Parts: sequence; structure tokens; C-alpha cells
Amino acid sequence: MTIYKGNFVWTSSPKQFESLEQGYVIVDDKGVISHVGTHIPPGYENAPVVELCSGAGEYVIPAMNDLHVHAPQYRNQGMALDLELLPWLNTYTFPEESKFSDPDYAQSIYSRFVYNLWKNGTMRAAVFATIHPEATKLLATLFDRAGMGAYIGLVGMDRNCPQELRNEANTIEAQIIDLIHHTKSMPLVSTIVTPRFVPACTPTMLSIMGKVAQEHHLPVQSHLSENKSEIAWVAQLEPESPSYAHVYDKYGLMSDSSTIMAHCCYSQGEELQLLRQRHVMIIHCPTSNVNLGSGIAPVRQFIDQGIRVALGSDVSGGHQLSMFRVIQYAIQMSKLKWAFTDKQMPYLTLSEAFHAATKVGGSLFGKVGSFEPGYAFDALVIDDSALSGWDKQYSPLQRVERCVYLADDRQIVRRYCQGREIPEPQI
Amino acid sequence: MTIYKGNFVWTSSPKQFESLEQGYVIVDDKGVISHVGTHIPPGYENAPVVELCSGAGEYVIPAMNDLHVHAPQYRNQGMALDLELLPWLNTYTFPEESKFSDPDYAQSIYSRFVYNLWKNGTMRAAVFATIHPEATKLLATLFDRAGMGAYIGLVGMDRNCPQELRNEANTIEAQIIDLIHHTKSMPLVSTIVTPRFVPACTPTMLSIMGKVAQEHHLPVQSHLSENKSEIAWVAQLEPESPSYAHVYDKYGLMSDSSTIMAHCCYSQGEELQLLRQRHVMIIHCPTSNVNLGSGIAPVRQFIDQGIRVALGSDVSGGHQLSMFRVIQYAIQMSKLKWAFTDKQMPYLTLSEAFHAATKVGGSLFGKVGSFEPGYAFDALVIDDSALSGWDKQYSPLQRVERCVYLADDRQIVRRYCQGREIPEPQI
Repeated sequence: MTIYKGNFVWTSSPKQFESLEQGYVIVDDKGVISHVGTHIPPGYENAPVVELCSGAGEYVIPAMNDLHVHAPQYRNQGMALDLELLPWLNTYTFPEESKFSDPDYAQSIYSRFVYNLWKNGTMRAAVFATIHPEATKLLATLFDRAGMGAYIGLVGMDRNCPQELRNEANTIEAQIIDLIHHTKSMPLVSTIVTPRFVPACTPTMLSIMGKVAQEHHLPVQSHLSENKSEIAWVAQLEPESPSYAHVYDKYGLMSDSSTIMAHCCYSQGEELQLLRQRHVMIIHCPTSNVNLGSGIAPVRQFIDQGIRVALGSDVSGGHQLSMFRVIQYAIQMSKLKWAFTDKQMPYLTLSEAFHAATKVGGSLFGKVGSFEPGYAFDALVIDDSALSGWDKQYSPLQRVERCVYLADDRQIVRRYCQGREIPEPQI
Repeated sequence: MTIYKGNFVWTSSPKQFESLEQGYVIVDDKGVISHVGTHIPPGYENAPVVELCSGAGEYVIPAMNDLHVHAPQYRNQGMALDLELLPWLNTYTFPEESKFSDPDYAQSIYSRFVYNLWKNGTMRAAVFATIHPEATKLLATLFDRAGMGAYIGLVGMDRNCPQELRNEANTIEAQIIDLIHHTKSMPLVSTIVTPRFVPACTPTMLSIMGKVAQEHHLPVQSHLSENKSEIAWVAQLEPESPSYAHVYDKYGLMSDSSTIMAHCCYSQGEELQLLRQRHVMIIHCPTSNVNLGSGIAPVRQFIDQGIRVALGSDVSGGHQLSMFRVIQYAIQMSKLKWAFTDKQMPYLTLSEAFHAATKVGGSLFGKVGSFEPGYAFDALVIDDSALSGWDKQYSPLQRVERCVYLADDRQIVRRYCQGREIPEPQI
């Protein structure tokens, strides 16, 4: 049990920030918060207190959760952004991903990837690996060794992609079960069923992956309705399906309330209804959607219909890993959507976008992403003195807003995941 | 005369980057480039050589030019972004600007502003100050003392704004002339005529400012067609005018090929024709346009019609000063425009957006923004070893792209303006 003292800022609900100045958060030995308040409760008076905010510019926020990111695309981040989705995949992304048949190459990139997630304050992520079982297990090991949380996906793909990036529908089940065994002893790392997307998966592949997900009660992640050409292609490949999402559903990939679908830029009508029925979580990836010219997802509409929306960096369609920047782009893109749709739907507020990157995204991992009793203590200590310390008139909320728009890894001074302080991972 | 050796990367034209590996740039005593080449020309063999790129991760690019930025809004950067233009002005911006009647406050903010421009690699800027003559002269002095280039604008505004932010049409001429005298001895700092925007300026104010611009051959900067409500307001205020731009033109504020107009999100038809006829330079401010939900300027259309387009950070409508990020947003917003207009017009390339922030923006200051003979030596030495140094396979162009998308002030290791290395300005 540890008692932390500090200035805590978080979003229990999307509507507003909550804060606790010079308050106390008590965390049990499993890393779970048991008390949040202005005083140390009776019985704990003599326990030692860990001061998280010694400096005047310090406060504590929930750690970031990145719900859609491609670890093997890490080398390409911030470049190769001159094409839209389908040619981008063929020209830049698939050639890079095929290098992960080499475990040494995987080690070099994946260790840098985990290090840079850490650096940017992301303590948990839902990650696409590649089709390569050894490299994928290595990625899981690296997260486990770092003490950070992850769902790791061995990617299923067996059509419309280079030969060297195809795995076989008849071996994927054994490979996923092997990954489950590999991650079994890892407290914060698990396996997620990961068909790449409909155009790259035969019906056999989708159906086997759906079966594996159901038999092993695994969550599922994939891509959905990112780009118009992709959607048209899916309609051609699966002409009987009422929507793109219905293809995943047909193969059992949307049961169990634990499917997350990235993008959904053009999800509407029957597709949206299905996503709502199946309690699918939409992962909004605004940096990626703008870099690949995909469009802007109607996030306000999703939220108003009761669909959960979390955020993803989607490196390397997204150009960088900082979830502060992804929050910022989520707000900005929703303002453009608002401007382009005659201001019909209010744009996202700061607290809504922050909530998406913390408490909503965290919900994939259990009770994660908020400072409430029962929640894992995942936290970042922010020192914004270099940004805002020169002016004592900034309010706590203004400082959080400036953090989202201006802070980088220099402002993150300590990182916690499941109650444990996470040291710099080794590259 | 100084001979610089290094890896130079620049854009003489928008079409592509040029580069010179381990080449030489000779700069005369006025800070102007006299030679660019792979060898030291005859007669200079014995002159000392300054090595700009000692490390493997170092290269030299032209320094950044920020053609639209509000120095008195510096304190508000990265916050107060939940409103669109007109309420944003009244709620956040005007109250902040009125503080600049106090020279001590101006000193505190303006010195930080100049320091942070420097930090982000912006060596020249076209700057809005406020209506306050003393604070405005101080801002000019700070640029001059730092050795950085600037056009400084004393803002004219006398209607539709708080009483304490109104100056008088009948005193503005004397105040501008006083500023001209103040900046006369400053080699890189000059005066620019700066009516705020049509809604805030009476016809008398506009007409006096137009007269001053013409009599003293001064350039002019203002705002144009940023936001639909603003445009509707102008149409109401000036019902006879065929377009918003025609109002400025009517009062002599668009002659002389040296007018720069920020935003132009909705400039088209007759307005665009006038801008072309008057050789007005459009200052595209993508971060601001997205933060205030203004829209996306049709930049491709401007360029295709032969209109010069430079870039502005527009702090604090824009949330930050880095022109790397503004280049990035310019590309990203043009991709969204492309997506939303049925892919009719190709989006901006990296070299086009880079060229806008260097050579086009630089043209306001003379021959600035390129590594060509006759151009001022304005340069940034970039050390990207922390970003890209771990992988020797990145090409020079990929490194520049990663700089635009990923680099921050840590990657800028030396800064030159007009041939002089610029040390860290004092706050």
C-alpha cells in the first residue's frame, strides 16, 4: 500500500475535469486505487507518504492509452505521407512490415517503439504487430519487461498483399494459441485477435479468427471504413454484406463487447447501428486520417449515440506517438467537421477528448484511466514550469490545456502503470 | 566574408528540394550569399572555413519566416481555443491585448515572445503589436537587439472593440511616423501599416492608414475573409463593396505589391481576382484556421493562379510558434481540402509547403529564404541524430520530412540571420 500526495487532475466523466489540490490517492499492493480524498483516512495516519508534486509546476494526470498503433511501422513515423491509404500500404508499409521476419530487426525497432511510447507517456496500448510469430512474441516480452500494459495482435492477412506478408488461415489458430501461452504469465500484456482488414483477409481467415476470439474470449481489433476506396473495395469483395462492419460481424468478430475498430470515418446508417448493438468501441485516429487524406470521423455523432470512442496514434499513418497531440487533433478535426456541417453538432471539448484518451481507452484494460477507487493507478507527473511556470495567473485548467497543446516528453517527469513507477525501458 | 561548409538543403522552387552535401556557401560582410557550390572558388583557397555540420546528423536549412503572428497574444498560446473568431476576440484576445498599455507587462511578454521565436528557428516575422505606441516600439527594439528580422505593426482599430483598445484615426499617422523614426536605425526591423481588420476600423481610419502606407512606401498587413460571420459582418458594414478585399483596396491599402493578407479562407471570385491584380501575398495560417473552426483556405487554387502564399503561425489563434508544425498543418489541411472536394486539386507537397515558409515568406524581407547567390544567409543548423541518427538508411529527404513532422527546438542547434549567428535572446 502506498499513499501518494499531489495535485491530481482527471476526467471521471467527459463533461468536465475534476481536480484535487494537495490531495491523497491511496494505492493497494495490486496497484489499484483504494481511496481518493483531501485527507488521509483513519488508520493510515502513520503510513509514509510519497510526494508526487514537490515543485510548484507539478501535477498528476492519468497516463495515456493508445488504442490503435502499428509497432512495425515505427521506423516510418513522420515520413512517407504523400499517398492515400491503399497505395500507401503497398508502397511504404507492407515493404517495411515484411522486414519483421528477421528477429534482430524486430528487436531493434520494437525496443525503440516501446521506449518511445514510454517517453510520450503512453502506459497502455492496443498494438498491431505483423504476421511473424517470433517477432510478435518479442514485442509482448518487451512490453512485459518494461512493466507497461498492452494487447498484442499477431496480424492475420492472406490476400491482396505481398506474398511474404501472407500467413495461412490453417496455421493462424495455432499461432494465436502460442501467443496466448506466451503472454499468460504477463500481468499487463495479453493477446488480441487481429485480422488486418477485410480486403486482406479471405473469408476462411476471418472465420477462423472469429472462432478463436470466441473460444478463447479474446478481444478483437481491426480497421473499419477508413477511406472511400477501401470501402468500395470491400463492397466489391463482399457484395452480399449490408455494410463493411457486417462482414466482421458475420464471421463472429464483433461479439462479446470487446471489439475495437479503428477509424470509422464513414460509418453511418446500418453500419453504425450494428456497431452500437455490438457495443464496439470506435478508435478515432485523427492524425492518421488527416495524413492519409482519409477524412474526418463524425465523432460527435458516435458519442451522442452512446458509442464509446477512444483515441489512437495510428503510427505511422499518424506521424507521432504523443497522445497529447492526438487529443489536440481530435478537438481540431471536430472543429473542422463542425465548420463543414453548418455547425450542426458541437465540437469536442478538451475534457471530452482527454476523457477519450484516458478513461474510455483505458476501459479496454479493465478499470484504467481515472483517479477513482477501484481504478489502476496509471499516472503521469507533469512538470510544466518551463511552459507555464513564469506566470502564476494560469489556472490549473489552463495549464492542462497548455499541456495538451504545447507539452512534450520534457514535461513528463514520472510515469506509473498499475501502481508501479516505470523506469526508462532499455533499447 | 565567411566560408561555411556543410550539408545544405533548400527549395529554390516549390517543385523540389535541392541539396549540396559537404558543400560551401560564401557569405559577404553584409550577410549576403555570394557563392554556393561543391568547391571553394579560386581566390578563396586560403580563407578560413566554418564547419557547420561537424556531426553526422547535421544539415543546414533556410531559417523560418513567420508572416502572421500577434506578439501580444503570446501568453494565450495553447489555450482559450473553445470559441470561434469573433467571440474569441472579445472574450480572450482583446482583454489580453489591453494589458499592453503597461510597458512593464509588454516587456515581460514581448521578451518571451522574441525568445520563443528564436528558440523555434523563426528568424524573421511580420508581427501585429497592439494600439500602444510605447509597447510597440519596445517590441521593435527587442527584435533589433536580438539581431532578428521583423516588420512591426502598430495596430489601428477604432470601432467595434473595447474602449481601451481604440486608437484615434487622427493620431495614428503621427504614431506610425514615430515608429518609422524609431526603426530607422535598425538594419533588420521596419514598420508595417497594420489596420486590424475592416470590422474594427472606421473608413477614416482605413483611409488615413492607406495614405500613410502610400506616402511612406510601407507594406501593409491585415486580416481577410477568415471566417463566415466576419465576412457577413463586413458585407453589412460596407454594402457597396464587391468583396471584403475591395474595402482595403478602396482605401489604398493594396497598392505597391507589398500587402500581405492573413487567412483568405473564403476568398474567391472577384476578391481573388483583385488579390491577383494587386500582387497581394496571402498568408496561410492553418493552425489558427483549424483551432478557431474557421475552415481551410483553398491554397492550391491560390498557387495555381499565381498568387504567392506564405505561412503564419498566427499565435494565439494558432497554438504554437514552430513553423515546422505550421508547414505540417499546411500539408495536412490541404489533404483534407482534397478529400472534401472530390480530389479535384492535388494537395500540397512537402517541398511546396517548405518553400512557402522559407523563400515565399522571406520575399517580404528582400532576398531571403533560399541558399542562392544574392540571398541573405538566414539558416538553421539541424542536428537530427536523436530523431533519425539510429538508422543510417534514412535518405536526406526523409530526414527533412521527419524534421517537419517530428523535430522541435532541440533539433535546432545554431541559428543565423543575415549572416550573423544569433545567440539566445535575453528574457
